[in-house]
Amino acid sequence: MDKMWSGRFSAGASNLLDQFNASIMYDRKLYREDIEGSLAHASMLAKQGILTTEELREIVDGLNQVRNEIESGEFEWKISDEDLHMGIEKRLTAIIGDTGKKLHTARSRNDQVAVDFRRYVLRKNLEIVDALKLLMNEVVVVADLHTETLIPGMTHLQHAQPINFAFHLGAYLSMFKRDIARFEDSYKRNNISPLGCAALAGTPHNVDREMTADILGFDSVSVNCLDTVSDRDFALEILFNISTMMMHISRLSEELVMWSSYEFGFVELSDEYSTGSSIMPQKKNPDVPELLRGKTGRVYGSLMGLLTVMKGLPLAYNKDTQEDKEGVFDAVETAEISLEILKEAIKTMEVKAKNMESACAIGHLSATDLADYLVEKCAIPFREAHFITGRAVAKGEELNVDLSKMEYKYLKEIDERINEDVMEFLGLRHSMNARTSEGGTASIRTKEQLEYFKKYLQGAK
Amino acid sequence: MDKMWSGRFSAGASNLLDQFNASIMYDRKLYREDIEGSLAHASMLAKQGILTTEELREIVDGLNQVRNEIESGEFEWKISDEDLHMGIEKRLTAIIGDTGKKLHTARSRNDQVAVDFRRYVLRKNLEIVDALKLLMNEVVVVADLHTETLIPGMTHLQHAQPINFAFHLGAYLSMFKRDIARFEDSYKRNNISPLGCAALAGTPHNVDREMTADILGFDSVSVNCLDTVSDRDFALEILFNISTMMMHISRLSEELVMWSSYEFGFVELSDEYSTGSSIMPQKKNPDVPELLRGKTGRVYGSLMGLLTVMKGLPLAYNKDTQEDKEGVFDAVETAEISLEILKEAIKTMEVKAKNMESACAIGHLSATDLADYLVEKCAIPFREAHFITGRAVAKGEELNVDLSKMEYKYLKEIDERINEDVMEFLGLRHSMNARTSEGGTASIRTKEQLEYFKKYLQGAK
Amino acid sequence: MDKMWSGRFSAGASNLLDQFNASIMYDRKLYREDIEGSLAHASMLAKQGILTTEELREIVDGLNQVRNEIESGEFEWKISDEDLHMGIEKRLTAIIGDTGKKLHTARSRNDQVAVDFRRYVLRKNLEIVDALKLLMNEVVVVADLHTETLIPGMTHLQHAQPINFAFHLGAYLSMFKRDIARFEDSYKRNNISPLGCAALAGTPHNVDREMTADILGFDSVSVNCLDTVSDRDFALEILFNISTMMMHISRLSEELVMWSSYEFGFVELSDEYSTGSSIMPQKKNPDVPELLRGKTGRVYGSLMGLLTVMKGLPLAYNKDTQEDKEGVFDAVETAEISLEILKEAIKTMEVKAKNMESACAIGHLSATDLADYLVEKCAIPFREAHFITGRAVAKGEELNVDLSKMEYKYLKEIDERINEDVMEFLGLRHSMNARTSEGGTASIRTKEQLEYFKKYLQGAK
Amino acid sequence: MDKMWSGRFSAGASNLLDQFNASIMYDRKLYREDIEGSLAHASMLAKQGILTTEELREIVDGLNQVRNEIESGEFEWKISDEDLHMGIEKRLTAIIGDTGKKLHTARSRNDQVAVDFRRYVLRKNLEIVDALKLLMNEVVVVADLHTETLIPGMTHLQHAQPINFAFHLGAYLSMFKRDIARFEDSYKRNNISPLGCAALAGTPHNVDREMTADILGFDSVSVNCLDTVSDRDFALEILFNISTMMMHISRLSEELVMWSSYEFGFVELSDEYSTGSSIMPQKKNPDVPELLRGKTGRVYGSLMGLLTVMKGLPLAYNKDTQEDKEGVFDAVETAEISLEILKEAIKTMEVKAKNMESACAIGHLSATDLADYLVEKCAIPFREAHFITGRAVAKGEELNVDLSKMEYKYLKEIDERINEDVMEFLGLRHSMNARTSEGGTASIRTKEQLEYFKKYLQGAK
Repeated sequence: MDKMWSGRFSAGASNLLDQFNASIMYDRKLYREDIEGSLAHASMLAKQGILTTEELREIVDGLNQVRNEIESGEFEWKISDEDLHMGIEKRLTAIIGDTGKKLHTARSRNDQVAVDFRRYVLRKNLEIVDALKLLMNEVVVVADLHTETLIPGMTHLQHAQPINFAFHLGAYLSMFKRDIARFEDSYKRNNISPLGCAALAGTPHNVDREMTADILGFDSVSVNCLDTVSDRDFALEILFNISTMMMHISRLSEELVMWSSYEFGFVELSDEYSTGSSIMPQKKNPDVPELLRGKTGRVYGSLMGLLTVMKGLPLAYNKDTQEDKEGVFDAVETAEISLEILKEAIKTMEVKAKNMESACAIGHLSATDLADYLVEKCAIPFREAHFITGRAVAKGEELNVDLSKMEYKYLKEIDERINEDVMEFLGLRHSMNARTSEGGTASIRTKEQLEYFKKYLQGAK
Repeated sequence: MDKMWSGRFSAGASNLLDQFNASIMYDRKLYREDIEGSLAHASMLAKQGILTTEELREIVDGLNQVRNEIESGEFEWKISDEDLHMGIEKRLTAIIGDTGKKLHTARSRNDQVAVDFRRYVLRKNLEIVDALKLLMNEVVVVADLHTETLIPGMTHLQHAQPINFAFHLGAYLSMFKRDIARFEDSYKRNNISPLGCAALAGTPHNVDREMTADILGFDSVSVNCLDTVSDRDFALEILFNISTMMMHISRLSEELVMWSSYEFGFVELSDEYSTGSSIMPQKKNPDVPELLRGKTGRVYGSLMGLLTVMKGLPLAYNKDTQEDKEGVFDAVETAEISLEILKEAIKTMEVKAKNMESACAIGHLSATDLADYLVEKCAIPFREAHFITGRAVAKGEELNVDLSKMEYKYLKEIDERINEDVMEFLGLRHSMNARTSEGGTASIRTKEQLEYFKKYLQGAK
Repeated sequence: MDKMWSGRFSAGASNLLDQFNASIMYDRKLYREDIEGSLAHASMLAKQGILTTEELREIVDGLNQVRNEIESGEFEWKISDEDLHMGIEKRLTAIIGDTGKKLHTARSRNDQVAVDFRRYVLRKNLEIVDALKLLMNEVVVVADLHTETLIPGMTHLQHAQPINFAFHLGAYLSMFKRDIARFEDSYKRNNISPLGCAALAGTPHNVDREMTADILGFDSVSVNCLDTVSDRDFALEILFNISTMMMHISRLSEELVMWSSYEFGFVELSDEYSTGSSIMPQKKNPDVPELLRGKTGRVYGSLMGLLTVMKGLPLAYNKDTQEDKEGVFDAVETAEISLEILKEAIKTMEVKAKNMESACAIGHLSATDLADYLVEKCAIPFREAHFITGRAVAKGEELNVDLSKMEYKYLKEIDERINEDVMEFLGLRHSMNARTSEGGTASIRTKEQLEYFKKYLQGAK
Repeated sequence: MDKMWSGRFSAGASNLLDQFNASIMYDRKLYREDIEGSLAHASMLAKQGILTTEELREIVDGLNQVRNEIESGEFEWKISDEDLHMGIEKRLTAIIGDTGKKLHTARSRNDQVAVDFRRYVLRKNLEIVDALKLLMNEVVVVADLHTETLIPGMTHLQHAQPINFAFHLGAYLSMFKRDIARFEDSYKRNNISPLGCAALAGTPHNVDREMTADILGFDSVSVNCLDTVSDRDFALEILFNISTMMMHISRLSEELVMWSSYEFGFVELSDEYSTGSSIMPQKKNPDVPELLRGKTGRVYGSLMGLLTVMKGLPLAYNKDTQEDKEGVFDAVETAEISLEILKEAIKTMEVKAKNMESACAIGHLSATDLADYLVEKCAIPFREAHFITGRAVAKGEELNVDLSKMEYKYLKEIDERINEDVMEFLGLRHSMNARTSEGGTASIRTKEQLEYFKKYLQGAK
């Protein structure tokens, strides 16, 4: 009989229901947002004359005490309190008596859920942006050292063209920058106050929604209360944005795992971020990128879960929506630790530049350069040049020699029009540095890109 | 330096890695399976002469002590132990000394993970089957009371034909029976012992895999060790089977939510399984079916998560796979509490038979009967009969009277061939009882169906 | 031997491979983007002196002829051409001869795929925005007629508080406006030219990426070519944005289906947007909203599909990515037809205002008003007021009378402090109009909201 | 006005609705099942005296003519016919006149949809089983040649222990065998006739469901009609089973892609199943396994799509369910071509055994053998043995020599207890052949496994 809504109920809720229904064991993570929301609401009620100054003071003191109790670990979370909001209000009333019961004037639990969860998600958007920037910083540090380090640029996991390792890392800088833009845009779009929507239709009390929005750092108030109490777009957005970010991380992780193999040998993760085998003592396992890759699935699952939950729900609030929180909490925490550990793993890994460079001598990486030579120097149409190059490569394979090291005479045999100046074009470093178009891999271009990212991280745009 | 695999490592794992990498905080749920697996392995080693009888005794006593410590809450779970397997083995060695180190002979952590997790999933398959049967029992109890209770059978959420409520519930009995068959088939297909696969390739020690399989209740041993250590099909299957089961539950839940509305008024959930509103004291909310519906999304998410994790993993074990457990644990626990609370909600709900029956008088539910009459009694081809009936319905709407209560003269007007005996055909109960084809809704057929399910639940396959 | 890349291959591709590998049967949808991209590329090559003016003219004429052939249906799409890009280039060369082979100078198929697909997606973002605005317009037209029409505001599908129907529709206007913002933000973030990235590393030719970006309507050029050729964020974004939009549509559809039922009777879809039953002539089925609800699943599937495809792909291009297109095409087309048919269904549906209003007299919808009265007029703390109201509701159920119609004496019995002025507060229209807080349901507030949306649709903001 | 259900409708369906609603453009794939279902239904109606022999003959002839028209391409598929069932019935009636209208007696479109789609899915289960067996056969052929070919067995993509290539392939044989078992179990569980369920409640006509079940090859008839018309479990199952199968294929594909890289060089796909690059003539791209890996996402998407569609649907048929077909058709076709092309790719690929073997000499693959030696020959507890081995590996890295080739003196230095007979244990082939436990990699065991699969493929269960 101790539920706040139990007036008309003749039988109490069952224990099983408490266990099934209660969210307090996870939504208590929002205690800070909840208390701040209540403080803002109380201040507004006082300003509007709905609470007296004395009542406000009591409530403020009481809520501060509750916060202290929670932060010191004294607070007793009880499953029978159902949710965070009830738990805090009951404790408040226990501390300050009947005045506590006035706090809920002109608001509803739907308000509180909407305010608390939205503010949590908004805050996490910004915190993830910060963590992404720290990661980018670390990537830039490594990239700066490797603007001249050759590595095979691949498509289809086949050697394609020689690039430099900083340029390769620059691709991930671009992805992380896009990730940041998504989190920032989502923050802007959703920074709108739900407070004052009450159950679904607004309230007859003379509230000042602008005031509470202001106190809580929202840009504006929501336009339609019915929508507001059932809107979970902000939660879907953070799940999608984390999913896309983790997808990018999974791609880098895949590369780190492959690069750590004996076959590639392009990097070695530090002992601190590797583990061993219980049965094979020689193993050094790249657990960190493997787990990062795996955790992508977990986050996708949370996105799919909430999309499914929201599908086909009639307006306005339905209890199904309570299933929004655990998935978001889990995804956010996954994002946070993933960004931190990836940053550390990159910071501490050894880049085996020599292995990267020697790998470039396999696979005729300067084939495109030969084709470009034929077009530019011999005025051969591209498609024909491409065909001639194919024959040169076939010759190389027959001779078991990489195109970059093939003797001139063989090239001449293949096509009369090829002159000796071709030899310069086929050098791997030349090939890399030839790609000077905007966004290209030439060291000079790569350095420009790194400058661009540094400036971005220093706060410009 | 205290990791079991740290022989060749020059720097210890970082705390951050421990936190990211460790599974002990959730895989400890498998302690029972892990200890049983170790006991079986030790017995086998002793039988094969790899351990002495004395060593076996020490290990058995030690493991039993560990189990007691875990069950009494004394056992200290440390994140630095990484996982359950390490945690238990370290404690064992602390208790019995060097003999503890011999237990891991001829096996690998991969073995242990594979054995423990598979046995957990197999056990849960059977426990969910039991819970489904308990639920079915309760549904049968309610159905037995309502084989004569009319309710509108719907398609497109439109009244279509009168059926009885037991028949409606019978649809869910059919679904749950299919669910059981899936769990059972999955159990059978996957009841195969991984123990003895070691890291991935088997072991040179003279082990007896049949013996450990036998002790642990497996039907046979796996055929290829490389596959076995990376196989997670059994985990995907339980996720899919729970997803499909929750989908069925979500359909029933949707109906319970709608039936609980003022508009339908077909059932009233008991106070014990309902909740109230903090701002609207008159509300009685069907939280249980709403949450059940919502939890469907959560389970789908876990399925999608693991499918994503497994995609494109090279053989054999990769750390990504560690992401298999939390989703499965969560889905299993969701399934268990969902089945229990749904059973209780059904057991305690009030069926408002009168409302169901009066709803049948809306929507011309005997229209098909008129069409059937025209075919059977007047030898009119079905398509034409269908068209004539459409006009009768239009007349009913014009007169604002349900077809089941329309005066004969109007029918005659529509088609001369209709005789007065049509009136009997248009009664709602007659209409329901007319559908006597196998699997049909006639009360007599419905009772047969309930008998079929009762027999099934009594243990006949 | 007719593949453009077949120089070094000793055996032709198999037919089976053609069938498996070829994308031409679906990517031909991008022919317009492909030809425009080639025209821009050719102009740039000419400006840079890589093509002569004469060659440019030939190419422009040739490409225009190809476009005409495609649009007139003459063009022969051949699976052996693999993809759109090859198909068009081969035809171009057939028409204009060797000059055609020069067009591919300084670009790669990866460029073309990236340009064509990105421009398609960008364009579709804007077209969907337009379609959403047309839908919103129609919703506004209906809402304008119903700012005074009472309908039960629901939570948990239980009557909660009386609102007006325009306010209810306003919730969807808010959702669609958010949808638009997402499509627009995605457009802005992704309107960046890939052209000039070549295979992955840029090109040694002296290209002018700014020029082609300009011609093609891009805001800027991409920063890192390796990223650009493997970036599919824009495709994931449109899939997520359509998924979220369809989720909103599924919610409205769920309501339309329920509102079309006999139990609710709140709307009747027009005959033009309903269908009948082959066996039940009286049925009028809300197929349109049902299908809209179902199509949500299809779009979610495409999102999940592409997220899965992209997970763990090493840089840069991998053939897996070819799986990006069909899902996006399908989702876009689903979005387009869904928006159009929903608009028509809403435009032509009959709103049964009388039924909506009479439904408000069930469920004690003015209970919150009583609670508010107790707080405001009797200075009773909210939680106590809530409890008293609960008892009043219980009395109403006992007497079988709605709170809005309960006699004063019963209220007085429940609590002495209640005065006769309470009766005014309990009227349903009064209740609705009392909720005058910002975003609330009071007709006056609702009208403000509609003005807000009208202004938005007229192009402000 | 030409819809079969249009009797009560005052306005025809709109063209837009036709386009949105019609399924005929894809469900016509089921024409064979539909006509067979109608033939069975007609025979039964005749046997029960509902049709005359003459009428039956007309219908049979008419349906056969329709079938011929469809198969010859003469049949005109019209979107205004809505679906396959309507299209065929209208044509039938056009051919044979009024008798055609009698065919629909005692059945509903729901019946037809349920029968046709279920039979299609059942048939595809069996056809996929056949295709999987053909694939397994090809894998066995390759494996037979490589029971002695060493390849590094990996975990975490790190060399772990030497295995043989046939054993590696055996892992996939195990997976495919499990896939087959799932398809077969699904077939058995779902081979139940829906025919005779009519709209949802059975029929009053005197039908013989057993007879039609028999004719159509079903094992039994369904128990509850309401369930039957809304059951899509069989469709979900095939989507899940294909998803799991594609997951397995994606793992093999990932390996084929990596193995085709220069770094690994373990296999070379034949020219017939590779493609080239438009800009890099030297490239030989493993498009087939890449696409196979990518197509996994597509199939996952279809599974997730249908799970979403089915969630929360009230009984019985809802139009949402129409969204079941395209995803299933697409997944089935993806499965079929994937199995065929993978089979061909494996059949025609070159296995570079020499490269596989030389890779084994890297990574101290016999480390576990040293540990096992220490346990068995020196009676050192496993955990200590593991630690000693770790030091030996560290020594090897210091000396830059693989453990399999390390001089005895270094080992002796590390631990006194090591004798010279250790040298034999450290040989790679010895290591592989030592793993003789059941399911192990020893060539003798691998051959047993291949025998097991051959026997299985020859038809023994």
